[in-house]
Amino acid sequence: MKPLPEALRASIGARVDLIDTPALVVDLDAMERNIQRMAEFARKHRVRWRPHAKMHKSAELALLMQQAGAQGVCVQKVAEAEALAAGGVNDIYISNQVVAGPKLLRTARLAAQLAARGGRLAIAVDSPEGIERLAEAMVLAGGEASIDVFVEIDVGQGRCGVPPGEAAVPLAQAIARHAPRLRFAGLQAYHGRAQHLPGMAERREAIAGVVRAAADTRQRIEAAGIPVPLITGSGTGTLVHEAASGVYGELQAGSFLFMDADYARNEREPAQPQFEHALFVKTQVISVCDTHAVCDAGHKSHAIDSGLPVVALLPPDRALRYANGGDEHGLLHAESPKTRLPALGRMLWLIPGHCDPTVNLHDHLIGVRGGLALGTVERIIRVDARGALT
Amino acid sequence: MKPLPEALRASIGARVDLIDTPALVVDLDAMERNIQRMAEFARKHRVRWRPHAKMHKSAELALLMQQAGAQGVCVQKVAEAEALAAGGVNDIYISNQVVAGPKLLRTARLAAQLAARGGRLAIAVDSPEGIERLAEAMVLAGGEASIDVFVEIDVGQGRCGVPPGEAAVPLAQAIARHAPRLRFAGLQAYHGRAQHLPGMAERREAIAGVVRAAADTRQRIEAAGIPVPLITGSGTGTLVHEAASGVYGELQAGSFLFMDADYARNEREPAQPQFEHALFVKTQVISVCDTHAVCDAGHKSHAIDSGLPVVALLPPDRALRYANGGDEHGLLHAESPKTRLPALGRMLWLIPGHCDPTVNLHDHLIGVRGGLALGTVERIIRVDARGALT
Ligand SMILES: Cc1ncc(COP(=O)(O)O)c(C=O)c1O
Ligand SMILES: Cc1ncc(COP(=O)(O)O)c(C=O)c1O
Repeated sequence: MKPLPEALRASIGARVDLIDTPALVVDLDAMERNIQRMAEFARKHRVRWRPHAKMHKSAELALLMQQAGAQGVCVQKVAEAEALAAGGVNDIYISNQVVAGPKLLRTARLAAQLAARGGRLAIAVDSPEGIERLAEAMVLAGGEASIDVFVEIDVGQGRCGVPPGEAAVPLAQAIARHAPRLRFAGLQAYHGRAQHLPGMAERREAIAGVVRAAADTRQRIEAAGIPVPLITGSGTGTLVHEAASGVYGELQAGSFLFMDADYARNEREPAQPQFEHALFVKTQVISVCDTHAVCDAGHKSHAIDSGLPVVALLPPDRALRYANGGDEHGLLHAESPKTRLPALGRMLWLIPGHCDPTVNLHDHLIGVRGGLALGTVERIIRVDARGALT
Repeated sequence: MKPLPEALRASIGARVDLIDTPALVVDLDAMERNIQRMAEFARKHRVRWRPHAKMHKSAELALLMQQAGAQGVCVQKVAEAEALAAGGVNDIYISNQVVAGPKLLRTARLAAQLAARGGRLAIAVDSPEGIERLAEAMVLAGGEASIDVFVEIDVGQGRCGVPPGEAAVPLAQAIARHAPRLRFAGLQAYHGRAQHLPGMAERREAIAGVVRAAADTRQRIEAAGIPVPLITGSGTGTLVHEAASGVYGELQAGSFLFMDADYARNEREPAQPQFEHALFVKTQVISVCDTHAVCDAGHKSHAIDSGLPVVALLPPDRALRYANGGDEHGLLHAESPKTRLPALGRMLWLIPGHCDPTVNLHDHLIGVRGGLALGTVERIIRVDARGALT
C-alpha cells in the first residue's frame, strides 16, 4: 500500500484549526455513533446489514463496520472489490452488472482469492448473456472457486434489472444450471430513487410496491423449485420499510455512515435512527467584498449532483448560503440583510450535498476526534478505491 | 514520481478496443491539432498564451504546450503549482487568492525553487491583507526570491477581485511598496461566466465591457505612476475578443486543449479556431431492456456540473441520448422511435459536459494515436495535480 503523504502524516495529533483547506474531514465520534445506531437497528429487526462501500471506498471503514456487526460490503465495481480485498475485506458483493470478459476474469480470480482466505464474492446479473459470460470466466479461471449470484430485478429505479415476476425465473434457472461454479443467492432489489423522495408517505408507498414485487418474484422462483436464500437491497432513505417488511434479509445502506445535505433535507421517518452528519469540507474564506465572501471549496472539493453544500455550525445571525462559484470557489451570501459576512481567512465547515461522489474526489479523509471546534486529528483514512472505476 | 500501475503500463501499444471501461481517453491527434491552432492564433494576434492547467493538471501536457510556444501555465491552487513544478514546469502563475499562512509559506518556498532553476512564480491578490500576508511569508521564507503579483479585478464574474477602476490603485501601490520581494506584474481580469454565454453577440458585448474596465483600471494605476506590465485573462469561449482588444497581453484559455460538450453547444465565433473534441469517456453497455440501455459511466467518471455528456461517434440512425443514471451508471435512450438500442457489451464514447472537473476524477489519461476506431494506446498521461486542492 502507498505510504501516507508526508504532510498528512505530520498532521496527526494536530488541532482541527491547523487542517489545511479545502479538506474532507470526518467527525469520528459522530461516525461511530452512526455505526452503533445502524448496528442496533439491524439487530432489532433481525436483518443483516451489508453497507455499500461505493460511498466510503475505504477498507478501514469497512472493517470497522464489520467489527460492529456488518456483513462484509457491497461495491459497484470490480476495481472497488479488488481495492477493498487488498485492504483486508473478505466478504464482498458486487451489486452491479459486469459483462466485459477481462473484468469477469478479474472477478473469477478475486472469487478464488477470497475463498482461499475464508471469504466469498457475490455479483449481480440481469441477463442470460451476463450469466453465460460469468460462468465461462469462472471456468476459464480454473480452480474450484464458486461465486454467489443475485438476479437483479428492477423494482422502480428504471436502470438495470429484469422486470419483477416471471422474467426472473429463467435467470435463476440459468444460474442453477451452472452450479456449483455459480450459486443462486437470491434477489437484488434496490430502488435508488425512492431513497431520495422528500416525503415520508411517498417513500413508504414506493417501498410497499417494491416489497410486493420482490415477494412475488421470490414466490415464482420458488414455485419453479429453486429456493431463494436472500432478498437484498435498501438504502439510508427507506431502510425502515425494508427492515420491517419480513421480506428483505439484508440492508445495503451506505450513506448513513456520513449523511449528507440531500438526505437531511427530507422528512425523517420517526422509526429511522437519528443519523448525524459526520462528513464535512473544511474551507477558508479567501476573498470578501460588499456583496459576498468567497471560499476555497468548489465542486472539485465536493460533488454537486444532488445539490449544493450547506454551511454548517454557524449561529443563526451569521448564517450563510453557499452558491456555486465553479470548480475551486464557493460564493457565500448572507442569509438575511442583517447577517455579517465572515472575515478574510475565516475557516468554515460545509456539509456536502452528496457523500458518495464527494468522497471519490479525495484520496484521504481526515479523521477528527473531539469535535470540529476543539478536536484533534486522530488518523488519516485512505480512500482505497478512489477512482476505482473499472 | 509514482510508477504507473501495472495494468496501465501493459496497455501501451494495445488497440483502442481493449481499453477497459470506463476510461478517460485523449485523442492525441485531435489534441495536437488544437495546440497548433492555439499557437497559430496567439502568434497571429501577438499575444502570449498561458494555458490554464486547472483543466489538464498534467506536467507532460504543460510542457508539450510550452514547446509549441505557450508561456508556462496558470493554476488555481498552490498544490497544483507544486505538482507541476515537480514535473518540470518552471513558469507558473497562481491566478487565484491565497491567504492561509502555511500556504503562503509554501508559495514563497516554491518561488525560491523556481527562481533557482531559472523559472518564476506569480500570484493574484485582491486585498491589502492578502498583500501583507504574502509579503510577510516572502520575508519569513528568507532568501532573495521575489514573486510577481497581479491585482485581480472583478470584470463581471462576481467572484474574487476588487471592482475595476480606482479600487485597484491602492493595491498596486501596496505591492510596489514591497518591492523587490513583490513585483507588481499587472492585472488579472477574467470573466468566467462570459466564456459560457451561448450567443456570439452576448459574449462580444460582455467582453467589450471587460476590456473597457481593464483598460480604465490600467490607466488609473499608470496615472498613479506605476507601470502596468500586463493584463491577463480570457478563456476558450471569448479569446477572439481579448486577443483582438489590444489591451490583453496574455490569454489563459485552458479548455481549448480538450473541448467539451458545454462549449460545443454554444454559437461559434467565425474567428475562433475550430477546436475539436479530444477528450472522451470510453464506456460499455452493461444492461439493456425494452426502453433503454445502461452504460458503466456515471458521474464518478465525468463531471455533470455543466450538463450531461453527449454520446459521440454514432451514425444518425443509432443516435443515443445520455440521461443521468447516478454515480456509476448512464441511461441511454434512443433519440427517435426508430433508433435501435445498442447491444449488451457494446463500447461507446461520451463527450464530457465539462473537461476540467472530469479530468480531476481520473489519475491517468489514456493517450490514443490513430483515432478512436482503429487507433492504439500511445502513452499514459499522468494527472499530476489530481485532487491537488490546497
Ligand atoms: C445498489 C445500491 N445499494 C445500496 C446503496 C446505498 O444507498 P444509500 O447510500 O442511499 O444508503 C446504493 C447507493 O447508490 C446502491 O447503488
Ligand atoms: C482564472 C481562469 N483563467 C482561465 C480559465 C480558462 O478558461 P477555459 O477553460 O474556459 O478556457 C479559467 C477556467 O476556469 C480560469 O478560472
